[in-house]
Amino acid sequence: MANTNRLLVTHQIEASHDTIQDIADDICIEQTVEVVKQLAQDRWIQENIIGRVEEISQKRDNTFLVVISYPEEITAYQLPQLLSVLYGNISLKSGIKIVGIEFSDNFLSHFSGPGFGIDGIRRLLNIENRPLLATALKPMGKTPKELAELAYKLALGGIDIIKDDHGLVDHSFCSFKERVRCCLSAINKAEEETGKRVLYFPNITDSYEKILEHAGKGKEMGVGGFLVSPMIVGLDTMRYLSDNI
Amino acid sequence: MANTNRLLVTHQIEASHDTIQDIADDICIEQTVEVVKQLAQDRWIQENIIGRVEEISQKRDNTFLVVISYPEEITAYQLPQLLSVLYGNISLKSGIKIVGIEFSDNFLSHFSGPGFGIDGIRRLLNIENRPLLATALKPMGKTPKELAELAYKLALGGIDIIKDDHGLVDHSFCSFKERVRCCLSAINKAEEETGKRVLYFPNITDSYEKILEHAGKGKEMGVGGFLVSPMIVGLDTMRYLSDNI
Repeated sequence: MANTNRLLVTHQIEASHDTIQDIADDICIEQTVEVVKQLAQDRWIQENIIGRVEEISQKRDNTFLVVISYPEEITAYQLPQLLSVLYGNISLKSGIKIVGIEFSDNFLSHFSGPGFGIDGIRRLLNIENRPLLATALKPMGKTPKELAELAYKLALGGIDIIKDDHGLVDHSFCSFKERVRCCLSAINKAEEETGKRVLYFPNITDSYEKILEHAGKGKEMGVGGFLVSPMIVGLDTMRYLSDNI
Repeated sequence: MANTNRLLVTHQIEASHDTIQDIADDICIEQTVEVVKQLAQDRWIQENIIGRVEEISQKRDNTFLVVISYPEEITAYQLPQLLSVLYGNISLKSGIKIVGIEFSDNFLSHFSGPGFGIDGIRRLLNIENRPLLATALKPMGKTPKELAELAYKLALGGIDIIKDDHGLVDHSFCSFKERVRCCLSAINKAEEETGKRVLYFPNITDSYEKILEHAGKGKEMGVGGFLVSPMIVGLDTMRYLSDNI
């Protein structure tokens, strides 16, 4: 089934024996055509748009697992619409949780995936076999110099990756550019002393305009990567950054 | 308080008399510095970063209302960071719901607000005093021509605003451009017959690149507005569109 160009979504649903089939059928409609069944009798729509209940099994009293498949074409192979298909109108209802999604090879071929991945990060750090050590720079309110001093100590202490706390953005009291400049200079100094590579990932979660500006600037300055909060800047903004920066 | 350049956030919290103060104090820390209290003793940080419990009141058994204020500067006056400050780390905890937010005039002055607003939409439609009638084009799976035929009937029937269903994106079986072209032509025809203005709002919720492309194209073609799902393309993408398209 995973390679039939259908999206397989497993839902955990609180319901009774009497209601589970209706709830499952309702999800197939709500997540696609969103009209009463009578208004979607068109055969092409029935076959190519509306979801299909593949399996219903009972997990425990009043809890069922329901697998629904969708023609993946309805996602238009873009992430915002994928979210709508997975959890659009049903997000307004209670007792429905998505616990599993299976994508076909064809679906995945529309996305290039992580820009580096864990292998790429290991390559950048030249560490093959041991766990990587990562930590966060904080707290918000420290100056760029104070944060850089902390980054220096962390680098000397053996940390491999230092990321900004998600609260560190482009503040009046700690600007993005000044923080990146100070922190990069601090880890470079530590690297010279220890001979050990350290990566710094500044947080670029910001307004629509500044994300791109900071990503470009950060790359130019030589950061090892970025921190982005995908669900608050938009999942596809993350995909765009990975594909283009 | 609303005009002291602090953000006022009201939380509804499930807790007991014994624990509510600790939970309130914890929110002030978690949403700002995210370190144990001992590591944020710096006086400037205490006064200018960390949240402050303004009021705790009991709503009913085991339910409290807790008002916390934050210096609004920590939001950097951008929406993704505002979401982080409001509901970042505490989103991982249970029993905490935000039920009210009060912004200062200074905070609001950093945002231009809706591009048109309800007054602007009333002006576009030239309707001053009666309720506006709006509906959605659906279902997904219909061709541009079929949807346009529906839009035509809706326009003749007296609808003022026709928006795409959020499931209508840029599909292989119903492209954005073709749908907009057909639907605009249909409502123009209806307008000629009835003399009554109708607005069409196509859905531009799409990939990072296509949102802008479709917004520009739609505006050029003469649509009355757009449908965007802000939480899945990013709240600030919405702000950017409002400010720039």
